[in-house]
Amino acid sequence: MPVQSTTKIAALLNALRKDEIDLLDYLKQVQLHFESIEPSLMAFVEELDRFERLTQDAKQLEERYPNPDSRPPLYGLPIGIKDIFHVDGFETHAGSQLPTEALAGAEADSVTKLKEAGALIFGKTITTEFAYFAPGPTRNPHNPEHTPGGSSSGSAAAVGAGLCTVALGTQTIGSVNRPAAFCGVYGFKPSYNRISKESVIPLSISLDHVGILASDLPGAALVAGVLCKDWQEVEASESLTLGIPVGPYLEKASGEGRQHFEDSVAKLDNAGYATVEVETMPNFDEIVERHNLIVAAEAAHTHAEWFSKYEDKYHQRTADLIRKGQQVDTGELEAATKSRLELRRDLTETMEQHGIDYWITPSAPGPAPKGLDSTGDPIMNLPWTQSGLPSLTLPSGLNAEGLPLALQVIGRWYADEAVFADSIQINAALK
Amino acid sequence: MPVQSTTKIAALLNALRKDEIDLLDYLKQVQLHFESIEPSLMAFVEELDRFERLTQDAKQLEERYPNPDSRPPLYGLPIGIKDIFHVDGFETHAGSQLPTEALAGAEADSVTKLKEAGALIFGKTITTEFAYFAPGPTRNPHNPEHTPGGSSSGSAAAVGAGLCTVALGTQTIGSVNRPAAFCGVYGFKPSYNRISKESVIPLSISLDHVGILASDLPGAALVAGVLCKDWQEVEASESLTLGIPVGPYLEKASGEGRQHFEDSVAKLDNAGYATVEVETMPNFDEIVERHNLIVAAEAAHTHAEWFSKYEDKYHQRTADLIRKGQQVDTGELEAATKSRLELRRDLTETMEQHGIDYWITPSAPGPAPKGLDSTGDPIMNLPWTQSGLPSLTLPSGLNAEGLPLALQVIGRWYADEAVFADSIQINAALK
Repeated sequence: MPVQSTTKIAALLNALRKDEIDLLDYLKQVQLHFESIEPSLMAFVEELDRFERLTQDAKQLEERYPNPDSRPPLYGLPIGIKDIFHVDGFETHAGSQLPTEALAGAEADSVTKLKEAGALIFGKTITTEFAYFAPGPTRNPHNPEHTPGGSSSGSAAAVGAGLCTVALGTQTIGSVNRPAAFCGVYGFKPSYNRISKESVIPLSISLDHVGILASDLPGAALVAGVLCKDWQEVEASESLTLGIPVGPYLEKASGEGRQHFEDSVAKLDNAGYATVEVETMPNFDEIVERHNLIVAAEAAHTHAEWFSKYEDKYHQRTADLIRKGQQVDTGELEAATKSRLELRRDLTETMEQHGIDYWITPSAPGPAPKGLDSTGDPIMNLPWTQSGLPSLTLPSGLNAEGLPLALQVIGRWYADEAVFADSIQINAALK
Repeated sequence: MPVQSTTKIAALLNALRKDEIDLLDYLKQVQLHFESIEPSLMAFVEELDRFERLTQDAKQLEERYPNPDSRPPLYGLPIGIKDIFHVDGFETHAGSQLPTEALAGAEADSVTKLKEAGALIFGKTITTEFAYFAPGPTRNPHNPEHTPGGSSSGSAAAVGAGLCTVALGTQTIGSVNRPAAFCGVYGFKPSYNRISKESVIPLSISLDHVGILASDLPGAALVAGVLCKDWQEVEASESLTLGIPVGPYLEKASGEGRQHFEDSVAKLDNAGYATVEVETMPNFDEIVERHNLIVAAEAAHTHAEWFSKYEDKYHQRTADLIRKGQQVDTGELEAATKSRLELRRDLTETMEQHGIDYWITPSAPGPAPKGLDSTGDPIMNLPWTQSGLPSLTLPSGLNAEGLPLALQVIGRWYADEAVFADSIQINAALK
C-alpha cells in the first residue's frame, strides 16, 4: 500500500530552511521513494534526468539563499505541476497528442510565484486530455485497479503516494476536489480567480480554477497563502453552523457515500458543531445543464484553431465536447455564464438566512470507482465550481475496501482564509 | 492516517552504504517523521535525547567504516528493539513496574549481531508486561482506537507507521505474527531457536522465539539472514502446493477473517498455486491447553524470584498467569513440553502425505479489535509457535474499516530460507 507521507509539510520546510536537513540529501531520499513507487503509479510525465535537473535547481537555490534567515517560505519544497501549466524548460503536453510546439507558452504566474517562494519543480504530473475526461495511465495509490480521479490525476496520486507533498491542479467541474477525495489527500479549490490562471491551458475560461493538492492541511494553507491574491491570515471562529444542502444535489451521492457522510456529520455534531439541513438548489438539473453548456462552448472556443488543425489527434471524448460546444449560440452561452453569479448569490443568501457559516457535503458520490477508463463523477463539486465559492476537501476515512472518502467544506466568496482557519478544527473532529 | 513507509529497505541500505544518502541527514528526516507521529502513536519507550544519541552512534559508525566498499549489510539502518531485549546503554523495563536494576542483563546476542551488521538502535519499543497480555499505551497506526496487537506492540506499530523499517519482537504464542497482521506489516517468526534468545527476558523458555517485523519482505529476509544461524540462500520453488488446515483450528477465524482468507486463497488459485484443504489438528483444544500450561509453568519458573519480591508490582493478568503456573507439577510440564515435538512431527507428516509445501492460514482471527485494553487473540499463531515451524505474516488487504488483514505462511522445520524465497511470489499474488 503506497501511502501519503505523514511528515508535516511545515516541519519539513522549517528543517530545510534552517539547514537542519540538507536539501541535496533530502532530494536523494525523495528519489529513492520515487523509484520505488512511480513505475507502477505513473503519476508523472516522464523526464529522463529528473533528479540531475532537480539537483541543479537545488544547488542554484542554495547559492541564491546562502543565509537561512532570508530563505523564502517554500524553500526547497518539490512541487508537482499538472501538465496544463506552462513551466519554463518543460514541454506542455496537456495529456494530448498535439505537437508540443502548438501548445507552448510563457510560464504560468502560479508556477513563477511558487518558484519565487523557493519551491522546486518536481516535474509535470499526468492530466486527462486537456483537463477534460479522457484519462491518462495514472493509478490510485490506494488500489491500482481504481481511478485516481481526474482531471488532476497525477497531482492527486503523487501526493497520495507521498512522492511529493504538494502539487498544483485545476478544476473546471470537479478536477481538484474529486481526485483529492479519491486519493485521500487535501484538495483546495479557491474562490474564482483568487489564484491567477495566466498561462494555464484553458478548458472553460468562466469556470477554470487553479487549485492545490497537499498531504496536510496546514501545508495546503501555506501554499494557498503564497498563491492567492491579497492573502490575509484570519483567526478561527469560535462557533460554527454547518449547512447540509439536502435536495436533488445531495441525492447524487451513492448509498455508501451518503452513509459515510452521515457518519461524518455525526462526528461533527459530537464535536459541538451545529449542523442544519437546508433544502437548496431545487433546480439542480438546470445548474448541471448550464455548467456543461458553458464547458462545451468555451472549450470549443479555446480549441477552435487547434481542433481545426489536429482534429484527428483528439480523444473521442474531447472531440465530442468540442463538437457539442460548436453548436452553442452566443445568446445561450451569455445567459448561462450570467447564471453563475445568480447561483453564487442564491447560495450565499441561503447561508445568510439560516446562519450557515459553511456548507458541508461529500467530495464525491462515493469512493474511487474501479477501472481506469473513467475518472469518476464530478457532480458533487459542480455547483461550487460554478458559483466560484472556495471548496476544500478533507479526507474523512476509508471505505470497505480501504478506499478513501472525503468531506467537502464550502465557504463564502473570497473567504478562502477563513475556510482554512476553520477547517483545521473540522478536520480534527473527523479523525 | 500514519502509514508504512514504501521506500524499499534494500534500496535505502544501498544508498546509505554508498553515501548516496548521508546518514546524519537521513536521521534528521527520520526525526522529523518521528516527531509528527510518535506523540499520538506511543510505540517507543521514552528516551530524552534519542536523536542526539543516534547522531553520535551514526558518527561512530561512519568513523568505523569510512570506506563504502567494506560497509556491513545493515549499515545505518535504525532498528527498534522490543523492551525485553537487553541492549547496552539502555534500561530494560519489559513493560513492567519492577525496578530496572532487577531486570538488568548483558546485551542480547541478536542485538549485538544487528549492531555488528551496522544497524543503529532506534530505541526500545513498548511491550506488554513481560511479553504477556497486559498492554502498554501503543495504538494501531491504522486507527488509534484499535489495538496494535501484542506483545510486540511497539515494534509492529513503529514499523506500521513508518517510524522505522525494521524492529525486533518475540513470540511465545502469537506476539510477532498477530501484531504484524494488525498493523499491516511483515512479521517473521523463525524456526524454534534459529535466532538466539540469549539475554532476552524469557516468558516461556520452550516456546519463546525472537522474531522480525519489517516494512517489506526482501528487507525482512535481509535481516533474517543476519540473525538466523547458518543462513543459506535458496532458490524459489517452481510450483507449490499450499495446504489449508481445516478443522477446529481454522474455525477459530471470525466470519470476516475467514471470508478474507477465502478471497486470498482464490487469488493464489488464480496465480497458479495448487491449494488443498486438509483436516488437521482434530485435538486442537488439547494443543491450546498444553500450550497455556507450558507458558504458565515456565513463566512461574522465570519469575519465581522476582514475583516473590515484587508481587504487588505485577499486573493482575501476569500475576494470574504466574499463580496458575505455580500449580503445575513437573510431570505435567514434562509431558506438555514433549508434545511440542509430537505436534511438529504430526504437522510435518501431514505435509508429506499431501504433498504440501506450506500451510497457509489467516494470521489472526480477524482485524485488530477495537479498544486498547486487550491485544487480540493469538489463537491462529499458537500451533505454529508450539511446533516451532517458521511462520511468516504477509499483509493481504484491508477490511471494511481500513484495518489490515494478513495471511500466514508456515514452512518446514528449519526451512526459513525457503519460506522467504517462496513467499516473494505468494506475496505478489496477494496484491
